[in-house]
Amino acid sequence: MKAFYGDLKLGILGGGQLGRMLIQQAINYNVTVKVLDPDREAPCRKLCEEFVVGSLSDYDTVYKFGKKVDLLTIEIEKVNVEALAKLEEEGVMVYPQSRVIRLIQDKGLQKQFFKENDIPTAEFQLISSPEDLRNTAFTFPYIQKLRRDGYDGKGVYKVIDANDLPGAFTEPSLIERFVDFEKEIAVIVARNESGEVKAFPMVEMEFNPQANLVEFLIAPSTLPFEIQQEAEQLAKKIAEDLKIVGLLAVEMFLEKNGRILVNELAPRPHNSGHQSIEGNTVSQFEQHLRAIFDQPLGDTACLHNAIMINVLGEESHEGPAVYKGIEKVLKCPGVYVHLYGKALTKPFRKMGHVTIVDVDREKAIEKARYVQQTLKVVS
Amino acid sequence: MKAFYGDLKLGILGGGQLGRMLIQQAINYNVTVKVLDPDREAPCRKLCEEFVVGSLSDYDTVYKFGKKVDLLTIEIEKVNVEALAKLEEEGVMVYPQSRVIRLIQDKGLQKQFFKENDIPTAEFQLISSPEDLRNTAFTFPYIQKLRRDGYDGKGVYKVIDANDLPGAFTEPSLIERFVDFEKEIAVIVARNESGEVKAFPMVEMEFNPQANLVEFLIAPSTLPFEIQQEAEQLAKKIAEDLKIVGLLAVEMFLEKNGRILVNELAPRPHNSGHQSIEGNTVSQFEQHLRAIFDQPLGDTACLHNAIMINVLGEESHEGPAVYKGIEKVLKCPGVYVHLYGKALTKPFRKMGHVTIVDVDREKAIEKARYVQQTLKVVS
Repeated sequence: MKAFYGDLKLGILGGGQLGRMLIQQAINYNVTVKVLDPDREAPCRKLCEEFVVGSLSDYDTVYKFGKKVDLLTIEIEKVNVEALAKLEEEGVMVYPQSRVIRLIQDKGLQKQFFKENDIPTAEFQLISSPEDLRNTAFTFPYIQKLRRDGYDGKGVYKVIDANDLPGAFTEPSLIERFVDFEKEIAVIVARNESGEVKAFPMVEMEFNPQANLVEFLIAPSTLPFEIQQEAEQLAKKIAEDLKIVGLLAVEMFLEKNGRILVNELAPRPHNSGHQSIEGNTVSQFEQHLRAIFDQPLGDTACLHNAIMINVLGEESHEGPAVYKGIEKVLKCPGVYVHLYGKALTKPFRKMGHVTIVDVDREKAIEKARYVQQTLKVVS
Repeated sequence: MKAFYGDLKLGILGGGQLGRMLIQQAINYNVTVKVLDPDREAPCRKLCEEFVVGSLSDYDTVYKFGKKVDLLTIEIEKVNVEALAKLEEEGVMVYPQSRVIRLIQDKGLQKQFFKENDIPTAEFQLISSPEDLRNTAFTFPYIQKLRRDGYDGKGVYKVIDANDLPGAFTEPSLIERFVDFEKEIAVIVARNESGEVKAFPMVEMEFNPQANLVEFLIAPSTLPFEIQQEAEQLAKKIAEDLKIVGLLAVEMFLEKNGRILVNELAPRPHNSGHQSIEGNTVSQFEQHLRAIFDQPLGDTACLHNAIMINVLGEESHEGPAVYKGIEKVLKCPGVYVHLYGKALTKPFRKMGHVTIVDVDREKAIEKARYVQQTLKVVS
């Protein structure tokens, strides 16, 4: 059992909002935090013992940073895994483990892992060249995804028919059957070093198709209990198959026929778990800390209905951020504003999120819509 | 209406645990924080944009610090009020106002304010010299309190009979009738610049007589509704009479005859409000920020039974702090540990607090007792 306070220095690769919210929680345990991020204006810059500006994908930078800490975690998976593997060899605790990050960084390896472990996922084919794509037996329409470095909808390309082929990615990719889903759902699960595994209750998501970002998330789900249970079991199975230490976000599709397909994994706190800060007994950030410090995992029960909306930069605004309507939303009880400390807004940039809680689900939805219409990030 | 994010720099006089928890909340609003504290190892040292080491009672130090910020607040009332008054004159917003801090710094002025405003309080007499004390018409037993600089039970002296007189304070003080109280209670109230006033539900306290510190606090109260209402009305009246901007903690005695007497005021977040972080819709820290930034005050409703226990340094331990039993208490659902980032423990030093929540009051009490027996700060 590691000491969960003071003694151990925690390093975080990435200094964005996920790191920021992790630090807010780590304060409660006297955990000393150092952060590495390429952006000297990153959200964590003022909130840690040491903020190092440097590349997350450069071997030497990550290795040197890792040597300063006892325990290293990530808030973004695009990091140099070779450096992490070397640090592990040299006795630094790296959670999630480098092998897990390596697997998840590559959507092709992720899909193969699903297949090998009987985890239901949309049919796919790995594509290494434009020729592979021309010769595929897949019928239109399908989705092409870059194997590496896609995020928030980037690196995804729809192939409706042959006319779309010239615009397709030429880098290593995979193609996937177009899933006609009823709903996107997600489960966040945690596993600590001792092997304890706990899932948060399943959440339902609504995407903004224009921004291709989660826009509206609601928990607990009102879908049939069996579906929720199946999703939670699936997430736990994946965490156990991976033997991950830390948090794992499992994004899933619920097909119209009722089948659940696993879409993607993220081995870290995730946008689909932000509502847990106010909505659950423990938050995803608290749970991640408990998992990586090998502490008992916390109770994940929902306390009330919670809706999370992302606060995105308005479409035609770019520059220093101004938050319009904040005093109006603060008038509503049970509305929690979380801004991410980003000075500049850009169209659809994640500038913050708001969680709305209410014992009455319909009221929560009504308040969430009001917040969405009222709070605007302009420049 | 002030901008509640980014634009305004907030200065905090004092870098202890109250400042630390205020910063944890301020992160959500992108508020840039600077802190002044004489101790270079103060709990806030790593969590702010700028941490200035310097005396809180020195005019020049406080004035110079105040000139760097737009809005100045306190987490301890022992600060140089002359500097604050000058800063106010020069356009810095100081909340709570210097005149409120000046009044509250002096227990004599506080008591006179109660008298002038028909606020029930124990009978008292101001004492300026040992001679005054010898000539008082007060009958034994009574309590002597220093007018200035008493805190956490320091600066209080019990005069049981004439034998205690030689040990009495010789500095300006007041003497007060010994109150035979049933219970200590407290209400935290907030008032923003626009004049909106909201009280948190009354809490009941249990003191550790040896350490003379709040040891156990429970909310909501189960005392009769009329008593709770009276206490909350009284706190609101005081906030309105003072025209304070910010948070005001009102500590009260409930006498055996059912009468409420106001004991002391603190114009800032207070130990008797820590349970609000998990126990209420908004916490005292969120409410203080809303009040000083002139935002709508938040809903103060209790979400469930919440008990707060202080985590104090064990009696015979002094040195680098070790927190024993933390992994055991983390096994209980609804137990929230807050450590204050203090490297060294001393007997009875406030090293942290734990909030225990449960829908069942008896279960909450049972869990609190378990935490109290289990979590120990040793060296």
